[in-house]
Amino acid sequence: MFMHNKRLQYTVRVAEPNPVLASLMLEQFGGADGELAAAMRYFTQGLGETDAGRKDLLIDIATEELSHLEVIGSIVAMLNKGAKAQLAESAMEEAELYLSMTAGGNSHTQSLLYGGGPSLTNSSGVPWTAAYIDSRGDPTCDLRSNIAAESRAKIVYERLINVTDDPGIKDALGFLMTREIAHQKSFEKALYAIENNFPSGKLPGIAKYANVYVNTSQGDGDVEGPWNSGEQWDRIDDLTLTMPIDDGDGTASVGLDATDAEVAEALAARTASATSENPTTGVDLGAGPGAGRVTAQDMGAADDIQDAMKLADAM
Amino acid sequence: MFMHNKRLQYTVRVAEPNPVLASLMLEQFGGADGELAAAMRYFTQGLGETDAGRKDLLIDIATEELSHLEVIGSIVAMLNKGAKAQLAESAMEEAELYLSMTAGGNSHTQSLLYGGGPSLTNSSGVPWTAAYIDSRGDPTCDLRSNIAAESRAKIVYERLINVTDDPGIKDALGFLMTREIAHQKSFEKALYAIENNFPSGKLPGIAKYANVYVNTSQGDGDVEGPWNSGEQWDRIDDLTLTMPIDDGDGTASVGLDATDAEVAEALAARTASATSENPTTGVDLGAGPGAGRVTAQDMGAADDIQDAMKLADAM
Amino acid sequence: MFMHNKRLQYTVRVAEPNPVLASLMLEQFGGADGELAAAMRYFTQGLGETDAGRKDLLIDIATEELSHLEVIGSIVAMLNKGAKAQLAESAMEEAELYLSMTAGGNSHTQSLLYGGGPSLTNSSGVPWTAAYIDSRGDPTCDLRSNIAAESRAKIVYERLINVTDDPGIKDALGFLMTREIAHQKSFEKALYAIENNFPSGKLPGIAKYANVYVNTSQGDGDVEGPWNSGEQWDRIDDLTLTMPIDDGDGTASVGLDATDAEVAEALAARTASATSENPTTGVDLGAGPGAGRVTAQDMGAADDIQDAMKLADAM
Amino acid sequence: MFMHNKRLQYTVRVAEPNPVLASLMLEQFGGADGELAAAMRYFTQGLGETDAGRKDLLIDIATEELSHLEVIGSIVAMLNKGAKAQLAESAMEEAELYLSMTAGGNSHTQSLLYGGGPSLTNSSGVPWTAAYIDSRGDPTCDLRSNIAAESRAKIVYERLINVTDDPGIKDALGFLMTREIAHQKSFEKALYAIENNFPSGKLPGIAKYANVYVNTSQGDGDVEGPWNSGEQWDRIDDLTLTMPIDDGDGTASVGLDATDAEVAEALAARTASATSENPTTGVDLGAGPGAGRVTAQDMGAADDIQDAMKLADAM
Amino acid sequence: MFMHNKRLQYTVRVAEPNPVLASLMLEQFGGADGELAAAMRYFTQGLGETDAGRKDLLIDIATEELSHLEVIGSIVAMLNKGAKAQLAESAMEEAELYLSMTAGGNSHTQSLLYGGGPSLTNSSGVPWTAAYIDSRGDPTCDLRSNIAAESRAKIVYERLINVTDDPGIKDALGFLMTREIAHQKSFEKALYAIENNFPSGKLPGIAKYANVYVNTSQGDGDVEGPWNSGEQWDRIDDLTLTMPIDDGDGTASVGLDATDAEVAEALAARTASATSENPTTGVDLGAGPGAGRVTAQDMGAADDIQDAMKLADAM
Amino acid sequence: MFMHNKRLQYTVRVAEPNPVLASLMLEQFGGADGELAAAMRYFTQGLGETDAGRKDLLIDIATEELSHLEVIGSIVAMLNKGAKAQLAESAMEEAELYLSMTAGGNSHTQSLLYGGGPSLTNSSGVPWTAAYIDSRGDPTCDLRSNIAAESRAKIVYERLINVTDDPGIKDALGFLMTREIAHQKSFEKALYAIENNFPSGKLPGIAKYANVYVNTSQGDGDVEGPWNSGEQWDRIDDLTLTMPIDDGDGTASVGLDATDAEVAEALAARTASATSENPTTGVDLGAGPGAGRVTAQDMGAADDIQDAMKLADAM
Repeated sequence: MFMHNKRLQYTVRVAEPNPVLASLMLEQFGGADGELAAAMRYFTQGLGETDAGRKDLLIDIATEELSHLEVIGSIVAMLNKGAKAQLAESAMEEAELYLSMTAGGNSHTQSLLYGGGPSLTNSSGVPWTAAYIDSRGDPTCDLRSNIAAESRAKIVYERLINVTDDPGIKDALGFLMTREIAHQKSFEKALYAIENNFPSGKLPGIAKYANVYVNTSQGDGDVEGPWNSGEQWDRIDDLTLTMPIDDGDGTASVGLDATDAEVAEALAARTASATSENPTTGVDLGAGPGAGRVTAQDMGAADDIQDAMKLADAM
Repeated sequence: MFMHNKRLQYTVRVAEPNPVLASLMLEQFGGADGELAAAMRYFTQGLGETDAGRKDLLIDIATEELSHLEVIGSIVAMLNKGAKAQLAESAMEEAELYLSMTAGGNSHTQSLLYGGGPSLTNSSGVPWTAAYIDSRGDPTCDLRSNIAAESRAKIVYERLINVTDDPGIKDALGFLMTREIAHQKSFEKALYAIENNFPSGKLPGIAKYANVYVNTSQGDGDVEGPWNSGEQWDRIDDLTLTMPIDDGDGTASVGLDATDAEVAEALAARTASATSENPTTGVDLGAGPGAGRVTAQDMGAADDIQDAMKLADAM
Repeated sequence: MFMHNKRLQYTVRVAEPNPVLASLMLEQFGGADGELAAAMRYFTQGLGETDAGRKDLLIDIATEELSHLEVIGSIVAMLNKGAKAQLAESAMEEAELYLSMTAGGNSHTQSLLYGGGPSLTNSSGVPWTAAYIDSRGDPTCDLRSNIAAESRAKIVYERLINVTDDPGIKDALGFLMTREIAHQKSFEKALYAIENNFPSGKLPGIAKYANVYVNTSQGDGDVEGPWNSGEQWDRIDDLTLTMPIDDGDGTASVGLDATDAEVAEALAARTASATSENPTTGVDLGAGPGAGRVTAQDMGAADDIQDAMKLADAM
Repeated sequence: MFMHNKRLQYTVRVAEPNPVLASLMLEQFGGADGELAAAMRYFTQGLGETDAGRKDLLIDIATEELSHLEVIGSIVAMLNKGAKAQLAESAMEEAELYLSMTAGGNSHTQSLLYGGGPSLTNSSGVPWTAAYIDSRGDPTCDLRSNIAAESRAKIVYERLINVTDDPGIKDALGFLMTREIAHQKSFEKALYAIENNFPSGKLPGIAKYANVYVNTSQGDGDVEGPWNSGEQWDRIDDLTLTMPIDDGDGTASVGLDATDAEVAEALAARTASATSENPTTGVDLGAGPGAGRVTAQDMGAADDIQDAMKLADAM
Repeated sequence: MFMHNKRLQYTVRVAEPNPVLASLMLEQFGGADGELAAAMRYFTQGLGETDAGRKDLLIDIATEELSHLEVIGSIVAMLNKGAKAQLAESAMEEAELYLSMTAGGNSHTQSLLYGGGPSLTNSSGVPWTAAYIDSRGDPTCDLRSNIAAESRAKIVYERLINVTDDPGIKDALGFLMTREIAHQKSFEKALYAIENNFPSGKLPGIAKYANVYVNTSQGDGDVEGPWNSGEQWDRIDDLTLTMPIDDGDGTASVGLDATDAEVAEALAARTASATSENPTTGVDLGAGPGAGRVTAQDMGAADDIQDAMKLADAM
Repeated sequence: MFMHNKRLQYTVRVAEPNPVLASLMLEQFGGADGELAAAMRYFTQGLGETDAGRKDLLIDIATEELSHLEVIGSIVAMLNKGAKAQLAESAMEEAELYLSMTAGGNSHTQSLLYGGGPSLTNSSGVPWTAAYIDSRGDPTCDLRSNIAAESRAKIVYERLINVTDDPGIKDALGFLMTREIAHQKSFEKALYAIENNFPSGKLPGIAKYANVYVNTSQGDGDVEGPWNSGEQWDRIDDLTLTMPIDDGDGTASVGLDATDAEVAEALAARTASATSENPTTGVDLGAGPGAGRVTAQDMGAADDIQDAMKLADAM
């Protein structure tokens, strides 16, 4: 069960309102790597977890992320406090309000739709979606996802710190950023506390494909590194060896019973392509005689994009 | 630049059509951890990458994932081949078609809307969204995200292998699953080929918060482990110490100029809550005298859920 | 700041696993009227609220809804416990697993993608979206939205209670349903504690349009009621009076400067429609001579849908 | 059946084009509280309604909202008329077009993608989604949702009125805003014309939980009001009384048969956490010896965020 | 199987970085008519296609579109190269970074969230969704959809060409735009190579409704053209003839068995509307006595929107 | 302005309730090619259109599609009428309700969440999104999109007709299907009434790329047809000629000023990959000594997927 205390986990001191900056901060409130995503990622994992240690860890951090959601949301609320009141009370001239609302970021929608309250959107106004959450119910996957998520949240905080010079906001963001570092460390410990955590799941891989590196992108720029070369890798540079990599013929087929086969054939016959003739098409109908306009026929007249623009201008 | 050869990377042999199984397989075609997500994750990272080695690696694997998208999509196409023809040619009775289409999974939408072709949806019919992709333009974040994504893709393939006994499908899925293992290994090598890859970004954390573990979830079930205990952690069990964790008072405030402050006050006054009186509300209007129906006033009559259901039945 | 205790707000006793029922329960976990939606609705309002009483109320209930999210999520986890283990350990035959996974609801995706953990989706597998949340930063709007949301959550719980006979689940759902009733009562009190809460905002309406009822849907079935008739309404049955309702001509226009006007004219001329001739079109090209197939020309041959189906069968 | 007359319900006179203002107006065209949302909310309810009076009311207002969609869409079309022609005819220099298109709001996407036509997006360019619609098929819920929706639409119109000084637009918006007030009044009458409209549905609540107020958020700022205090409330301040609120032990459990129990145990054993040892992790591998860079080991060197930024600069 | 060569299909020369322009270019990277949409549209069709000619065509063009995705993505990466480095290395002052990031378009989210890498979003930051793809598994539908999609992609490229004066970008966009023209031509040929391609599918239409044009929108502005007039059309101007157009009574009904009918009647009775009385509502409770504020009662005081604003100001 | 008459455009006679069939019908109510998509596609185009003929046509058909939305929605409402009442009145036993609700399609969510009313979702329960609408503000694009959309709507109706044997539903669907045919004909006429409708927009293509066909997919299965061969095409089979197709070197570059170049170099140095050594990674830490489990080292032990499953079973 959750409880709440009205004091924040970290004190928020904002120097002055700034709705544009507020809209940037939303990235960590309702964005893909924001605090709601973090809290819900760990909370859903925790509910499904049966290992007592991991369950405890997941709910601990989920709960702390909710407190962080409160901190970053409070920063947004403070940055919007002036704009919210000005719009609600219509205390500025219309033209001033219009200017203040179109100064950048996503501040216009934040004011018009959300009335200056913190919204669960990212910095573009895209509503938060659970598609951001990648809990899969397997601890070695989920812990790796958590490690990655913490490292991403850290970098987004670092970027936000770099774009504001308000010392109070910088302080609070510095705290939030550091906590992501600490959480990543915890999740790393939990991952490696599972013996044999690689590969995920229970099923081993197939030996003949597990150490193969397929050099599918070739040409100038091919680089060797420990990820594709060395004794642990069987590297394939001749791609014809992988078409297919098994002993088959590289086609797809399915066994159809007689009825299905007959119907499939009927469908094929009905929609067959006549490849031998050159039919008149809508394009032929549509590319007119070109009086005053460049047609498909004489498109050859445009030698390059500058020429094309001149032709268009002349229309 | 991309090129294509008509042979698949792995031969697909499907024993017989099965549209319900096809709809399950979509999880790896158009689902969150499916092959499009994988290909696009690495491709977008590769385009923005400047390190030659990582760029090569990312485009190599992105390209291979496109070939996997083709393999899994071909399995779906084969599993749907009969249903597609039957529906297009209307070769079954209506009642039969209805039954075949409502046999489970998401096969009904796959037939009705997508006509039996592979659709970029997950196994519930949810359209693929780029919200699944977490590329952040920082290599240490992105490689961690890739490692996690490969481990997730591996487990979903394992689950699919476990629900079909078609040997040709099992073979192809086994190949695809194993390649995710190999890719995870490559991304791990690439991550640790970056010296000082932790924490992500450039900004160090704040010392006093970096080793703190906050035990926010308490009660029976608290467990100690290397993720929250031991010499590397400063563990906080007394939560009052973190309200707030800084030296402030745990409130949020913003400096408003005189105009803003005045307008904010006007807004507060206009929308103030009268806490001292007990107003009549819509609920009071709506909970009628209860003739023939249980009202809010006598809700006390329902002692528990069985009782409540009896009361409702009696209405 | 949030804290957590490992005991649930309500004890969960599930008689036996049932993944299909689990997928129905998700409606209140990650669905539109589910507990995450409730918690986030009130939490975002609370962060932006400055009235001390309402802020307290909103955070109180937001916090309780998080505890409800934990209760309903725990029900889902219990209902999936067997399926999760069977799939992870591959302890059933493939055919059995396939059958158990395609038994209905959204259980197939819950197992394949989420591994049996509670997912933030609705009962169809649609990921939760912040588009469900309608906080607008005006207390009289937001409280009305909360009242409506609580009444919706109540009815969805009632429906879930009606589809299960597991007494432990019924008990827990009965508790959760009742809390929505209590919360609605609180929000009603808070709304009417604001003097002059109608209409929302500050701007009054325009007198001549405020009491008009436009009877736009006419014909058999027109009904009079207090919502459209009586002394408080000016009812318009003659719709020509509202085309337009103002003194203008019912058109839309904009003042364009000379340059814009000229360019707009050029665009109109370039894309003008020739209404006088009857052009040959793609349809004319595409509806062939009909050997073996019903063409557009002789579509007249299909008198009704039965006839159409016979003609199609004959193709 | 629907019919249309080419005259608008309200005459639209726009003083001059302004694509940025157009993009703000989209909030009421394709936004969450816009006219499409309103029309579809009432239309879907009306189709499912069997009470003749409510059905008539719902379709009446749905139809009027479609006319409002036409009015607000015509405002958008007029505001974009110049930009649309300039871009289509390429009648400005590239640099001018670039400037005009990046002047604020969402006007860049409106021009590039939608060509200046009104798009069913909100003011951030987020496509309209039926997730905005909360029809639940129960009249007391749906009418409450409609009341709330009208109050929200009213406030968004008020905000739009406050940001433009174009008198023709102000007039039309004033009309549209006033109609939301009138509609709210109609829906209120319809709600209270249902006897016993609270609580929604048929099932009464459980007596012992119906009047409880749980004070989950505590500390400075606790306020008493009619929503949580007074004779109608049983207020719980001691939260231990609600862990759990029933007579159980606050845990979640499920009855597993012997097979399931065994498999669940196997899963637990396979993925158990070793809590006693302190494993080496990826973080330990990744936080290098710190030549030229601040490592995890010496993160203690950053005393606060200013110090951290200095250290980063020195790298 | 896919292969890749590190050389682009078209050389990319960008004169100088410009993150705002980069965000506009995203429309063709991750937007509705962008290259990913094109590639996936044809690829999914190709996988499900059985006609050898069309399958070859679809995979040919899908593969080329992936190469175009690489070209446009490389343009985005080049335009963002400076901003990416400046933010990552924090090499500008905070205030400068803030300004550079809020200069327009969607550049703020591109930097904060995606770190300057090309993101699969449109120019508003909306994540790509497979809802953009309209493959239906019928070749005459799908080819028409492809023709339309190519014509749309062409116009968006034309608009992008018109907003930049960077000659290298213009060149590359000119190439990409021209390829859409070529692709449209191919798809037109493929459509008309199917004999009897209209109407789509197999079922003919019903004769009596196939040539009817219903003039549902009437009044000033009715225009005759080949689309609604002439000998091939039966035009209905008297709309009463279409209410309904069949021989029925224009109502909807269903056959209910006795049990269902009885329950439906019970539901109707329980939720019936009392149309004869005028109930007190929440609005009546909420529109207070108006001290200092315009109430519903005296809303008549606002004669027009100017008057309304004056009244609001006086509050 | 819109008006409504209570009679449907086509009489709806449903033989008996069937919630599963209802959920299939939703594809044309709230699905991608459903009637709301059609109505909104034409309505948004009509609002932005200035050509009087096309504007009239677009609004005519948009209005008719709204009437079709009403017809298909009424079918859904009738099919759900029994289920709606049974659930609302709880008139069946719980077990019966559970069975009736999990019988297939998306009927479970339709009952639980939408209460049996028609919902704006597709047949999988995915909410309608304006991402389905591809209006671009250019008439030659938009008319092509409309032609394609009508052909798609036609085929989905054909599929629905094929899966029901209810004669009243078949009749109504046959009417709706035929109207799509008629609408396609109208849009074709309108497209070809624009002289020079190809290519879309104003800018001609570049001559040297306009007639090139790039044979990017090679190998067995290459087919020649009028879409890639013949005198109008310059066909490229040797793909090296297109890497790049221009005179450049196929790379991407941008002009950076000195400051940007320096910072970009610093970023590259800081995150450079060490390609020469083989680092220890998380995988090496995680693939344990394999007591009782198959590790990465000995993955070679799994020769194929059958072998892998045996090894997993033995764990």
